[in-house]
Amino acid sequence: MPKKLEHIGIAVSNLEASEKLFTKLLGVSPYKRELVESEMVMTSFFLLGDIKFELLAATSPESTIAKFIEKKGEGLHHLAFESDNIVDELAEKENQNFQLIHQVPKDGADNKTIAFLHPKTTGGVLTELCQEKSNP
Amino acid sequence: MPKKLEHIGIAVSNLEASEKLFTKLLGVSPYKRELVESEMVMTSFFLLGDIKFELLAATSPESTIAKFIEKKGEGLHHLAFESDNIVDELAEKENQNFQLIHQVPKDGADNKTIAFLHPKTTGGVLTELCQEKSNP
Repeated sequence: MPKKLEHIGIAVSNLEASEKLFTKLLGVSPYKRELVESEMVMTSFFLLGDIKFELLAATSPESTIAKFIEKKGEGLHHLAFESDNIVDELAEKENQNFQLIHQVPKDGADNKTIAFLHPKTTGGVLTELCQEKSNP
Repeated sequence: MPKKLEHIGIAVSNLEASEKLFTKLLGVSPYKRELVESEMVMTSFFLLGDIKFELLAATSPESTIAKFIEKKGEGLHHLAFESDNIVDELAEKENQNFQLIHQVPKDGADNKTIAFLHPKTTGGVLTELCQEKSNP
């Protein structure tokens, strides 16, 4: 079972402009940028309460974020849930007939291992499971 | 400034089927349904940690939720942020060049007054401000 909502991913076209916009909207400033090379994405993180907001900007037209924006426009991209044991939780989710995009967790931003569930099996909500790498 | 993320709105076609799906996905059961007549929407609420997940199902083809699903499909619909003074916050947001969908807060689900900001001014993220009605 997921422990809590960890972050909300938001697809943006222009990271700098969107950082300014979300600083006004959320009332807090971004606290870090991080490149996720494997995803061809530059991220920027905001924290409001204990929920992170992760802006996602494509660094290549081949990035899934570029394709998402082409198809759906900028906006809400995914929800990420924190897990204490992502491997067990992926197996549980597969048993519950959720389709896994990643059978095996991979490195993500923010010192996490991550894996996604396919939105066609999650009511259209692209869903990430994530676990801190430093966890035992 | 918004105090915290209060809930995430998710547009669904079939409330009963989606309640079962999100019970599996979130690992918690819905704790209430509530009709919002003015919006032609039946809602169903889940709580994970201190974040609510609000499923939104249209009760009429004229509902904005029906139109949203027709255009974009089921999935993430809006983010709602809690405010201690929604009237002041709407004025602040308008001064910051966010376009208000509602100039004056209106009744929403869950004992709240609510108002929306237009997604064309919020990076494509339909944004709700909400305040508990019982607040002074």
